[in-house]
Amino acid sequence: MPKPLIALDWGTTRARAFLISETGEVLQRRVADQGIQSVPAGGYPAAFEALAGDFRRARPDAAVVLAGMVGSRNGWVEAAYVACPASPDEIAAAGLPVTLADGTSATVLPGLSCDDGAFDVMRGEETLIVGLGLEDGIACLPGTHSKWIEIRDGRIVRFASFMTGEVYGLLRQHSILARLAEEPAGDDAAVGASRGLAAANRPGGLLNTAFSARTEVLGGRMKGGEVGPYLSALLVAHEIASAAALFGRQQPVHLVADGVLAESYSAAFEAAGLPIAITTPEAAFIAGVTRLAAGLAS
Amino acid sequence: MPKPLIALDWGTTRARAFLISETGEVLQRRVADQGIQSVPAGGYPAAFEALAGDFRRARPDAAVVLAGMVGSRNGWVEAAYVACPASPDEIAAAGLPVTLADGTSATVLPGLSCDDGAFDVMRGEETLIVGLGLEDGIACLPGTHSKWIEIRDGRIVRFASFMTGEVYGLLRQHSILARLAEEPAGDDAAVGASRGLAAANRPGGLLNTAFSARTEVLGGRMKGGEVGPYLSALLVAHEIASAAALFGRQQPVHLVADGVLAESYSAAFEAAGLPIAITTPEAAFIAGVTRLAAGLAS
Repeated sequence: MPKPLIALDWGTTRARAFLISETGEVLQRRVADQGIQSVPAGGYPAAFEALAGDFRRARPDAAVVLAGMVGSRNGWVEAAYVACPASPDEIAAAGLPVTLADGTSATVLPGLSCDDGAFDVMRGEETLIVGLGLEDGIACLPGTHSKWIEIRDGRIVRFASFMTGEVYGLLRQHSILARLAEEPAGDDAAVGASRGLAAANRPGGLLNTAFSARTEVLGGRMKGGEVGPYLSALLVAHEIASAAALFGRQQPVHLVADGVLAESYSAAFEAAGLPIAITTPEAAFIAGVTRLAAGLAS
Repeated sequence: MPKPLIALDWGTTRARAFLISETGEVLQRRVADQGIQSVPAGGYPAAFEALAGDFRRARPDAAVVLAGMVGSRNGWVEAAYVACPASPDEIAAAGLPVTLADGTSATVLPGLSCDDGAFDVMRGEETLIVGLGLEDGIACLPGTHSKWIEIRDGRIVRFASFMTGEVYGLLRQHSILARLAEEPAGDDAAVGASRGLAAANRPGGLLNTAFSARTEVLGGRMKGGEVGPYLSALLVAHEIASAAALFGRQQPVHLVADGVLAESYSAAFEAAGLPIAITTPEAAFIAGVTRLAAGLAS
């Protein structure tokens, strides 16, 4: 008989807590800045209490499952990476128990490792991927360090990271381009993005086409407000092209994103001629953690 | 009849001053941190006096030629970009006169612009390229913003910039990789560079293979001392591959570099199977400014 579920997506800088009913309905949700980097040594039971103690008291019968960096070396307990290929049941089986402040138990989920030529790891994304419920396919989770994941026969078989979001921040905030960039106004965002997608097809590569933003602005051919959207679209298009080289042009790509990332990636996928299916990160997390909790109980 | 020459390569952060004999011999050289960013408004005659006033007094008959950012909007006088294709005589003809503190005259050389799909500009590098004396060929000037230049029939026909050095600095100093990188020890530099050149051939592209340094270190498969050399070699190899896509695999590539840049680019060119001919920046500058000074006199 299914139980209610208290699930946390507990990352480095942020935590998202959900109280989920027996039927999979989100009864309560909370987002807080108490990522694991703000938790002192020995402080996890108190941090959980602050984040979701009221959920626990409301539903003492609920299972408690914690995903993300909370399972890393700097987290509550280190749940060793499960090596790909990995099924949902194998991920659930590698969860580790921790004891909450009230003496009840919670499960910390592991991350995944992949040794497909280059070594790579993830923590938290595996839960969203499980939530997609794919038997076979390819998924893209955009972010500071975007992940692309391949699923075969219901198992995560390999994945790769791209430092797209971080390189965008470096170029936009710390490079010579930062001085020329301005807040987008009018149609700057649309024009800049369109130019960035086009530039990604030029043969000069990222190091040349990123620099073009500078010379185009100096030459009076690009507005300062177009620089950020240009760089963002350029980088996203490079990520998509590189991932297609790594994984092939599998269709559709299952994009897990919302807000501005969903918009910018959708536009770049359309420009690349790749159809997509979009799921929000919250929907993917809820479905994934519910599936993994069932694996724990079984 | 040739005259002696006082020539300055006067950039944003640094100035190099040379006293050159009628026969092209460097009689004196000086490097100073007085780049144009340290020169106050109206301060150029005094700055020149501090940099090369003694050269001027020693050879009052010498021509004085100033190349680089000294000809930019923030320089002594703005010498408008000459559009490619441009011959040495066309570059020399666009030089502008300025008056030194002693009342004699000097010539500020222009930079070049290129509109080959994307707009691009250079200031200073054109003088080094002229110094190569190429009738036809391709040249690579590595640096913060590397330049690749194509020469046809003795004219600079097009060029492109790559922000290789700057992106290296951003990744090495400001990215998540910075925390893992250590000073190379033992054979870290050689091993890291070799791995970076190999990684450049992987299909995941720069955004994936740069991030690999993090996961490889976390996985105990790369030493912290290898991270910097890995990133440097990876970026240089990407620059070379992208330039080959832009300009074709023209051979040999005329590399203008010395010191560690000459070493790292030489290794990357060898890995790419592209033969090179190396000229030092000083030799290229001396030959180029001598050639342009002859164009001024003619």
